[in-house]
Amino acid sequence: MSYTPLLQQLIEALRCLPGVGPKSAQRMTFHLLERDPEGALRLAKALTEAVERVGRCDSCRTLSEAPLCPLCASQRRDRRLLCVVETPADVLAVEQSGAYAGLYFVLGGHLSPLDGIGPEEIGVDALLARAREGVEEVILATNPTVEGEATAHYIGELLREQGVGVSRIAHGVPLGGELEYVDGSTLTRALAGRKPI
Amino acid sequence: MSYTPLLQQLIEALRCLPGVGPKSAQRMTFHLLERDPEGALRLAKALTEAVERVGRCDSCRTLSEAPLCPLCASQRRDRRLLCVVETPADVLAVEQSGAYAGLYFVLGGHLSPLDGIGPEEIGVDALLARAREGVEEVILATNPTVEGEATAHYIGELLREQGVGVSRIAHGVPLGGELEYVDGSTLTRALAGRKPI
Repeated sequence: MSYTPLLQQLIEALRCLPGVGPKSAQRMTFHLLERDPEGALRLAKALTEAVERVGRCDSCRTLSEAPLCPLCASQRRDRRLLCVVETPADVLAVEQSGAYAGLYFVLGGHLSPLDGIGPEEIGVDALLARAREGVEEVILATNPTVEGEATAHYIGELLREQGVGVSRIAHGVPLGGELEYVDGSTLTRALAGRKPI
Repeated sequence: MSYTPLLQQLIEALRCLPGVGPKSAQRMTFHLLERDPEGALRLAKALTEAVERVGRCDSCRTLSEAPLCPLCASQRRDRRLLCVVETPADVLAVEQSGAYAGLYFVLGGHLSPLDGIGPEEIGVDALLARAREGVEEVILATNPTVEGEATAHYIGELLREQGVGVSRIAHGVPLGGELEYVDGSTLTRALAGRKPI
C-alpha cells in the first residue's frame, strides 16, 4: 500500500529530524494526525518562527533571535573569560555544569581542510578581535576529537602570539565511569595529566 | 542558562512527537536551525497541510485526504472480505504483509468502558452497515491484548447475529523467534490452536 500523498509528504519531511527513520516517521505521522493535531500545528508554527527569526549573536555567534544573546547581553558575566566551543549545544552543556561565569565564542564547527572548512569558516578573525577586548584568558573547549584538538592547537597558537592567556579544558577519566571501561587514549591523557595530591 | 524564547518554544513543540524527550528535542532544534533550515520549513508546511487536509475515509475510516482512501477507491480489491483493525497503522502493517487483498474497517481504538470508549466511539454501527454491503467474511484483526480480544469478541457476536461470516486472525508463536523466549500465554494459544500436519 502506498500512503496518500500528504501522509507520504509528512513522513518524508519528518525524516529531516536527526535520529528519525522511516518507521519512527510513520509512527509520528499517525500519532500527530490521530491524537495531537493541535501539537502538530503548534510545531509547524514554532518551526517557521524559529527558522525565520533565529539568527546568530553578533558577539559570540551562538543561536539567538536578538542581536546579542542573553549571555552576551548580561552584565553579570565575567568579561575577562572567554570560552571557545564548537556549537551552541556546547554552550548549553558548559552552562549546565554551573562552573563557568564568563562569556563564550561559538566556532560553528572545527577546522576540516578536506571539507573546505578553514580558519575563515570558523570565525578565527572575529575570535582574535574578541580576545583583544579585555579578555585575560581564553579557555579552549573544543571537542576532544582529532579535529577539535587540531582546532584548539591552531587557535591557541594565534592567541598566544597576541599575548592572551590560553588554556585547554582537562582531559581524563570521566566521573561516575568505571576505569575498566575507559578507553586507552583517555587513560593515557589521565595519566599524563596527573596531579600531586 | 535559559534558551531564548523561540528556541524554548521549538524545543517544547518538538516534544509532542512520540519518543522525543527534552534532550532529543534540544538536539533536533540545534540540528534544524544550524544545518537544515530548509528541512524545517518543509516540515512545517507538511504538518500544516496534513492537519488541515487529511481526514477520514468515508468508507473505512482510515486517514485520507480524499473522501475515499486509495484502497476503498480501488477496483482491484476483493469487496467480499473486510478486515477490522484498530488503527490506520494496522492497515499498513497488514498491507505490507502482502497476504490480503480485501478491504478494511478502522475502529480507531478498542472498547474501553473505563475511558468512555463504547461501541459508538469505535463505529460499530458503521461497521455493521458496511458488513451488509455484500461482505461475506469479516476478519477481526484487533490487537492480541485484553481490550483487543474483548472488542473482537463483541463485534464478532453482533456480526454473527447478522449472518455474516466472522474469523479472527491466528495467535501463536511468531516466525523467526525462539520458543525459549516466547511468553506463556502465547505458547498456550499456540498449543490450543495446533493443526494436524
